[in-house]
Amino acid sequence: MAERFDEEALRAVGVRIDAEHPEGIVFDPHQPQLRVTDLSAVRGDGIFETMLAERGHVRKFAAHLDRLQSSAAITDIGIPPQDAWRAAVELGLDEFRSRGGLPDEVAVRITASRGVEGEPASDDPAFSGTYWVLLTPVTEKVKTSRGRTISVTLLDRGYDSGASERAPWLLLGAKTLSYAVNMAALRWAAKHGHDDVIFTSSDGNVLEGPVSSILLGRRSSDGRVHLRTPSPDAGILPGTTQATIFRAAEQAGWETSAGPVTTEDLHSAQFLWLTGSVKLVSPIGRIDDHSVAVDDELTAALLSFLNEAG
Amino acid sequence: MAERFDEEALRAVGVRIDAEHPEGIVFDPHQPQLRVTDLSAVRGDGIFETMLAERGHVRKFAAHLDRLQSSAAITDIGIPPQDAWRAAVELGLDEFRSRGGLPDEVAVRITASRGVEGEPASDDPAFSGTYWVLLTPVTEKVKTSRGRTISVTLLDRGYDSGASERAPWLLLGAKTLSYAVNMAALRWAAKHGHDDVIFTSSDGNVLEGPVSSILLGRRSSDGRVHLRTPSPDAGILPGTTQATIFRAAEQAGWETSAGPVTTEDLHSAQFLWLTGSVKLVSPIGRIDDHSVAVDDELTAALLSFLNEAG
Repeated sequence: MAERFDEEALRAVGVRIDAEHPEGIVFDPHQPQLRVTDLSAVRGDGIFETMLAERGHVRKFAAHLDRLQSSAAITDIGIPPQDAWRAAVELGLDEFRSRGGLPDEVAVRITASRGVEGEPASDDPAFSGTYWVLLTPVTEKVKTSRGRTISVTLLDRGYDSGASERAPWLLLGAKTLSYAVNMAALRWAAKHGHDDVIFTSSDGNVLEGPVSSILLGRRSSDGRVHLRTPSPDAGILPGTTQATIFRAAEQAGWETSAGPVTTEDLHSAQFLWLTGSVKLVSPIGRIDDHSVAVDDELTAALLSFLNEAG
Repeated sequence: MAERFDEEALRAVGVRIDAEHPEGIVFDPHQPQLRVTDLSAVRGDGIFETMLAERGHVRKFAAHLDRLQSSAAITDIGIPPQDAWRAAVELGLDEFRSRGGLPDEVAVRITASRGVEGEPASDDPAFSGTYWVLLTPVTEKVKTSRGRTISVTLLDRGYDSGASERAPWLLLGAKTLSYAVNMAALRWAAKHGHDDVIFTSSDGNVLEGPVSSILLGRRSSDGRVHLRTPSPDAGILPGTTQATIFRAAEQAGWETSAGPVTTEDLHSAQFLWLTGSVKLVSPIGRIDDHSVAVDDELTAALLSFLNEAG
């Protein structure tokens, strides 16, 4: 097991972006790259996106770059232009090719840190921080977990539904590196026999998973399918995978809606899924002590929406 | 200004702790030390403490090591024994001495990261993560800011008073690296003309500052002084500086108390201070649009409590 990890990890590729290398420069992620004074490590003060590159094609790249830009605006972190990120990711994929093999699936994580306090890396705000791309082959474990039924626990995220609008300093719409709570929630779930988490607001609204979005599904008596997801004004991240599914679903004649989702809605939902950029779609078969029905046909349809959209 | 920063930063000292160097090994904090896969930088998944070393003596070292251990227990991060941290800090102070001069005041930040996912640094849980000490001479700017009157804004922390007890996965009693919200609150304050922030719960209780504790003070008509601070069960960090002040105050015959503090209590308080390990004591002269009285004699007394306690 440890050996497999090493092998896989050895194959990861890093690409740094800075003012001298706006299109990126390759580094070895097994070597130290960050100073301990980098604010990413000092205070989780940075933003990120995780994407899936399938046979060298990054899925919904534009949507992720747009969300990174939105996170940058919320957190006031200067970031390189989108072209720089695209070039850096391409450079990383090329590095795999020149080593003799691009894996069929690569998880691509782009990170922008505020940099080192008091020492901007450049006078140009777009390059004042620390920026890198980490490309990691997707493991077999992750690939085979897709579409597999999971058990989730509902955990209170502590915020009420009005917090996002009332208190912008809570950064609720930004995907920041300050993920300790998300990880603690996942550890809590694992300790209590669950695979994942659905966060709720303190006033009983359904939010999102620590690293995923939530979809509710229903088949009407006439066979029509309706998908629903909590709306972004609940103080959650707009899910890029959820958005892709919704677009394809609408083209397939399904109904979709976004709006408040209560825990009662969740418990009375016919079908439920978590969605994410790398894990794609996971049907939920249990919420705490309640069983939830699973419809393999619908799950397959959601997965094919994603695979076809690319 | 940039030049002064460089000079100061050049003088910082780093000490890493690992299984091979349980008493620490010096590194240059201007050189990369962390991999981009270190969870401190990936997810703000680590814990820390900041202390003040005055002429080589670390103030309230034991209280900080105890709080680090408490944070470690809450986050389930393995950390080296207290002796290892003490030895590493001593090594860092010695490095200053061997370079020809220990600054009279050094800020000592100790950090424990969960390490690299799937690749524990050691089989021994106490050394499985990434551990380092960063020693930075305290700037003149910080020294002269002590005791100076500040203006604060009240900002909603988003959580209600019951969140800490109800939802332990929120890690409210741990000092984690996931500080993006704390920094966003301070930026918000600066943009709105304030020096600092006091966080409140969504149900109107006073919590703490993003990097400090809050003290309320009152002089009775008979001249007796009473100090009050929000109690830790409000989901805040127990302040080590506040605790030192309270012990000394009690010995001086002052009254002290800890308990719920409402925003009404804050607005009707006679005197207010923020306290922290490096900035020590800052009297509050304004909360948003309200003026607050400042008593220089009391502020001097609080500072001397800290200086005498060492």
